[in-house]
Amino acid sequence: MAQYSTPLDDAFQALADPTRRAVLARLGQGPTSVGELAAPFAMALPSFMKHIHHLENAGWISTCKTGRVRTCTLERDRFDVVESWLDEQRRIWEERTDRLERFVTATSNEESPA
Amino acid sequence: MAQYSTPLDDAFQALADPTRRAVLARLGQGPTSVGELAAPFAMALPSFMKHIHHLENAGWISTCKTGRVRTCTLERDRFDVVESWLDEQRRIWEERTDRLERFVTATSNEESPA
Repeated sequence: MAQYSTPLDDAFQALADPTRRAVLARLGQGPTSVGELAAPFAMALPSFMKHIHHLENAGWISTCKTGRVRTCTLERDRFDVVESWLDEQRRIWEERTDRLERFVTATSNEESPA
Repeated sequence: MAQYSTPLDDAFQALADPTRRAVLARLGQGPTSVGELAAPFAMALPSFMKHIHHLENAGWISTCKTGRVRTCTLERDRFDVVESWLDEQRRIWEERTDRLERFVTATSNEESPA
């Protein structure tokens, strides 16, 4: 069975690397050139560019080239996609906790003498 | 340079697959046997077990075997790890927005006649 990645797969996959997470954290402070982004990393530029392309393909950043300078900008809506999945998980647990509470209350009412 | 994965790398990597995310969503409703978890997926059991081991190694679930039944339980604290990273990113943007606001306010005060 062929497997295709979904936007959520790509979003999480992009976060599974410390360099890419550091780039996103830096871009949270504002748009930044690739040169400035690459500076703190002991990594050849082609390797660093792979991370940039990975983030771009996953929708976490957009890039724009002016002359010889490529500037990266954070796409914050990708955080909303990830957070809405996490919120959905939390809703599932809370529903379960509510059901358990209702069950315990109903059971203890049944057991109490009228 | 050798690369070692961090707990956060593993946590995000585990979420980058729809089967694993579906397993976590199911476990949000309570501990479940591997047999029940596997039932909705058109997948051979050894392939499904790889996903279970992946989630276990990344700390998202714990498993416990009684007789022939292995039961999986969600480890909710892994969500806290992921959410605290996301919260940190949000804090970075908000600090930037605050700085921009202070800059705009200071600039417009300087430009206004006294």
